Amino acid sequence: MILTVTLNAAIDLTYRVPHLQPHRTHRVTEVDARPGGKGLNVARVLAALGHRTTATGFAGGTTGGELRALLAEAGGVTDALVETAGATRRTVAVVDEATGDTTQLNEPGPHLTPAEWETFLGTYGELLADTEAVALCGSLPPGVPVDAYARLVRAARAAGVPVLLDTSGEPLRRGLAARPDLAKPNADELAGLTGSTEPLRAARQARRRGAHAVAASLGAEGMLLVTAEGAWQAAPPVALSGNPTGAGDSAVAGLLSGLVEGVSWPARLVRAVALSAATVRARSAGEFDRATYEDLRHRVTAEALRGPVGAG
Amino acid sequence: MILTVTLNAAIDLTYRVPHLQPHRTHRVTEVDARPGGKGLNVARVLAALGHRTTATGFAGGTTGGELRALLAEAGGVTDALVETAGATRRTVAVVDEATGDTTQLNEPGPHLTPAEWETFLGTYGELLADTEAVALCGSLPPGVPVDAYARLVRAARAAGVPVLLDTSGEPLRRGLAARPDLAKPNADELAGLTGSTEPLRAARQARRRGAHAVAASLGAEGMLLVTAEGAWQAAPPVALSGNPTGAGDSAVAGLLSGLVEGVSWPARLVRAVALSAATVRARSAGEFDRATYEDLRHRVTAEALRGPVGAG
Repeated sequence: MILTVTLNAAIDLTYRVPHLQPHRTHRVTEVDARPGGKGLNVARVLAALGHRTTATGFAGGTTGGELRALLAEAGGVTDALVETAGATRRTVAVVDEATGDTTQLNEPGPHLTPAEWETFLGTYGELLADTEAVALCGSLPPGVPVDAYARLVRAARAAGVPVLLDTSGEPLRRGLAARPDLAKPNADELAGLTGSTEPLRAARQARRRGAHAVAASLGAEGMLLVTAEGAWQAAPPVALSGNPTGAGDSAVAGLLSGLVEGVSWPARLVRAVALSAATVRARSAGEFDRATYEDLRHRVTAEALRGPVGAG
Repeated sequence: MILTVTLNAAIDLTYRVPHLQPHRTHRVTEVDARPGGKGLNVARVLAALGHRTTATGFAGGTTGGELRALLAEAGGVTDALVETAGATRRTVAVVDEATGDTTQLNEPGPHLTPAEWETFLGTYGELLADTEAVALCGSLPPGVPVDAYARLVRAARAAGVPVLLDTSGEPLRRGLAARPDLAKPNADELAGLTGSTEPLRAARQARRRGAHAVAASLGAEGMLLVTAEGAWQAAPPVALSGNPTGAGDSAVAGLLSGLVEGVSWPARLVRAVALSAATVRARSAGEFDRATYEDLRHRVTAEALRGPVGAG
């Protein structure tokens, strides 16, 4: 199975309001609640693609119970979340129907204890025995050591399990040094890491920091992939309008499913770009539009980039 | 005991953010969750005043479980909520720490079935047998008939239980016709009901529509009370700054506790105004500051208003 790790899982609430105005009272016209946190989004997309998928991370309190109920309701993903004393956080996306804009409110999440982190490490180690590939996704909750992802990357590699890392800041910097098979930062995260705003240059620098391969999401310009075998870029044939929430997580699912199925690097990139675009076009945030995906995965092409591989 | 009815109960979330800006992502720095809905606020204040208090209404889903857990945690209030299939709603108050302003997002709540409403009527009837006074508070959830409060007022009066009504709009208009012992609209609600923006005139008109007595909250100007025995007004000695959330609910608790203890109408008014002001001064929304209350209940005075009682 494919394993996804979400250390800072959440219940993602989407509120639709006619028009958001600070200092006013708003009647929410539509409420949507779904399992949240990047790794859980990745798991849902992998399950929709037909992969046997398990999600681990933390859940606690009544909100943790709600998260698990939502995950079970959605189906397809095995729940291997570790129970915590602190309550699972919520995120609220307020969609302004007049402007189409989204305002995001993210709870910080519970403070995890050292004992809870140790319990998680045990669970993670056991799960790796049956895992074909693992994705480590999202921010770290309070209480988890900043080198958490480095430790999880090393454990996966020691178990011979390919590992993808999708995080930012210091956890990304430390995680890269542990040599993940693939890192998937966006252009901003790459720039923050390397100081370079030129994505190809920055992706190559990120490889030198430890990642065997780097897939950088470039928004409307698609995605850039730099590996030991070469570098490619792919983008949707036309700019797609919609809600980009979860598009990066769908890209991770595309990359991981391609890895498990043993398809080539450029084919993985095409799959990631098609899924990402199909997510932007979906009605609900974090879902993907299957018709768009089926269309785009035959139309998106990966263009090989010139220049010596590994050059800065 | 004192019974409070909250047909549209909620989990009230308060999010503190450094500065709310539409179309941005915000990290919530502080999360507070408490039992919400006006009747549950009233129940908490009554319990804090030492009254044996029971709360009824509806709760359902995992959010209903969370509501009940929060109510049990707060202590002092007996949970007589009726289980529903639909999930209890949330409300989110976003406090902008830069401006002090609050932006409110209110979920609509679940649609109740006729069977759930009938079950509630049975529970309510049983609870009335042991009730000294009852408060009917807040808006009606979808699915409950618009004359719901009229029916609950009549049942209380038939059981010989004094009944206070605190709602607005059509449910208030219909509820008044069933002759509650006391109605507590605010100035806006009174104006909406009677067409008069002059509070004393409007309160007298509301009495003619059926309420035996009317207590109208006037914001910083305190509160106006019109009864068969006379009319009074009371206000805090100085204008108090703070968060007015729950101030009206604390006033209801003050009026109801005074009724049960058999104190005079002006003494009930003083208690309501002191509790209301102590709520504005509290650190958390919906709590009251006990020192402020103890100070004000000896310093607030009720001024008798001239003019023939009942004159329009």
